[in-house]
Amino acid sequence: MGWAIALHGGAGDIAVNIPAERREPREAALRRILQIGVSALNAKCSPLDVVELVACELENCPHFNAGKGSVLTTNGTVEMEACIMDGNSKRCGAVSGVTTVVNPISLARQVMEKTPHIYLAFDGAESFARQQGLKTEDPSHFITPENIERLKQAKEANRVQQDYTQPIKPQVDPDGDSKLGTVGCVAVDGLGNLAAATSTGGLVNKMAGRIGDTPIVGAGTYANKLCAVSATGRGEAIMRDTVAREVAAVMEYKGLGLKEAATYVVHEVAPKGTTGVVAVSATGEIAMPFNTLGMFRASATEEGFMEVAIWSSESE
Amino acid sequence: MGWAIALHGGAGDIAVNIPAERREPREAALRRILQIGVSALNAKCSPLDVVELVACELENCPHFNAGKGSVLTTNGTVEMEACIMDGNSKRCGAVSGVTTVVNPISLARQVMEKTPHIYLAFDGAESFARQQGLKTEDPSHFITPENIERLKQAKEANRVQQDYTQPIKPQVDPDGDSKLGTVGCVAVDGLGNLAAATSTGGLVNKMAGRIGDTPIVGAGTYANKLCAVSATGRGEAIMRDTVAREVAAVMEYKGLGLKEAATYVVHEVAPKGTTGVVAVSATGEIAMPFNTLGMFRASATEEGFMEVAIWSSESE
Repeated sequence: MGWAIALHGGAGDIAVNIPAERREPREAALRRILQIGVSALNAKCSPLDVVELVACELENCPHFNAGKGSVLTTNGTVEMEACIMDGNSKRCGAVSGVTTVVNPISLARQVMEKTPHIYLAFDGAESFARQQGLKTEDPSHFITPENIERLKQAKEANRVQQDYTQPIKPQVDPDGDSKLGTVGCVAVDGLGNLAAATSTGGLVNKMAGRIGDTPIVGAGTYANKLCAVSATGRGEAIMRDTVAREVAAVMEYKGLGLKEAATYVVHEVAPKGTTGVVAVSATGEIAMPFNTLGMFRASATEEGFMEVAIWSSESE
Repeated sequence: MGWAIALHGGAGDIAVNIPAERREPREAALRRILQIGVSALNAKCSPLDVVELVACELENCPHFNAGKGSVLTTNGTVEMEACIMDGNSKRCGAVSGVTTVVNPISLARQVMEKTPHIYLAFDGAESFARQQGLKTEDPSHFITPENIERLKQAKEANRVQQDYTQPIKPQVDPDGDSKLGTVGCVAVDGLGNLAAATSTGGLVNKMAGRIGDTPIVGAGTYANKLCAVSATGRGEAIMRDTVAREVAAVMEYKGLGLKEAATYVVHEVAPKGTTGVVAVSATGEIAMPFNTLGMFRASATEEGFMEVAIWSSESE
């Protein structure tokens, strides 16, 4: 048994024929960032450090919906969220409503390590980031032209959204924009130490102040001594089903292995079209089921397995 | 099988010899508010309406740490949180960082019913409350002289809190202030429809922006077709252990009954001195275990059982 790592760049109804110019930069980024995680594990970095490092790289990549490249609220602003969790200690940290911090996942780590709390949000999270000296940028730094266009399209496609009583209808995303997606990473070392990290800009055209599944311990992110899980997809469905904890609970209380537990939760518990997870177990197994058309993902093991994939036929 | 209801006004290390002037107003409030819930259930109100109604009454009572009477942040401000969940549909709503809304639980209900989201926080939650026309007051309305004094004492007792690296040490609370407590209610009707509601001012001397377990679906609040659960105690421990969902998961995946599941989670999973829950099952059972010295609580069933209690000897 050796180390294992899995990361994702969002699940959603990603059409199989998305243009190469949409697909290739993301695949290249996943491959490059996977390699950074692999090198860190080979260098004996702790899984907690590895998932933070990988999540930072994914946040810094404007092709994914986290950090720079986060989708916009209905007000045209960015409100980022993140969560990190260590499996052995179940220590965790989370943030929401972050508007200037370059790496929200590192802010979540600081909340975990430097406060008596787990979760800070909005102005309090921003003040704490300044106290801790984290790198910040003007809110405009995080906004890409693509996301201004996505917000415009979302508003045009859903004019009744103004009264907020009509949920946006799910639809196949021809550009593979992973509008609903997040980024995340889970890792385990050869000793069975586990960690999970998830980071997101949330949902395009979300109401200001909306919190999704990503920062919620047990929903978007979870790790204990059995497994580490990062979820992606429709945040409200993932919160309702406490998806990340559910994978661990099914292992713990039903005695299933990682793959069976993750498959059960994604295909039997979560509504179709809503959810993907990446997960690793203490014994180095990897599971990456999703019930959407696709999930940007990558994984590797110490034994030499390595994969970068979007749709399911590639790995099954 | 008939309806059942259980409510709490916070768990903590409440000394058995707290002064009568601290104990009696709370017991009287629990008795009065329990009766309001009982009357509503007898009048065939839905469990969702009942738990909202009861939580509003508890929020309006300044003897409890929710709504008026909420404890203060380290800045001397009030930041309230609440969550409501319907068992059959698993629909839910939650709010954090509420500063002017008289009944945060009703705002959580509006988030559930009038938005495509589950959870709104801080300025976004306040803006939504104004859009919906919920009753608001100046932030000073929520601040009681007792809570100004509690903050002063907390700061004096814990001067190092300024660097936030030292958690506050747990200690027996001679006044039964339930500083860590919340309010909550769970109810089931004769048809097995379940609902849960929890509301809090959080933790005295908390950092601005701190989010606790109360608004987190699966941590402080959870309901599905099997049971409804509201937790109270040390929020960070309850979040880490996803306590409310855990009770339901143990029922679902280990096949235990409500009492056995709730007892298992509170006494075998949650660290001692951190956690209490009130829970009802679809078949009308009630469980109210806690691993602190006491929990302000009340319960009743259609068959005529009724109890108001603080310490464990009263109900065991």
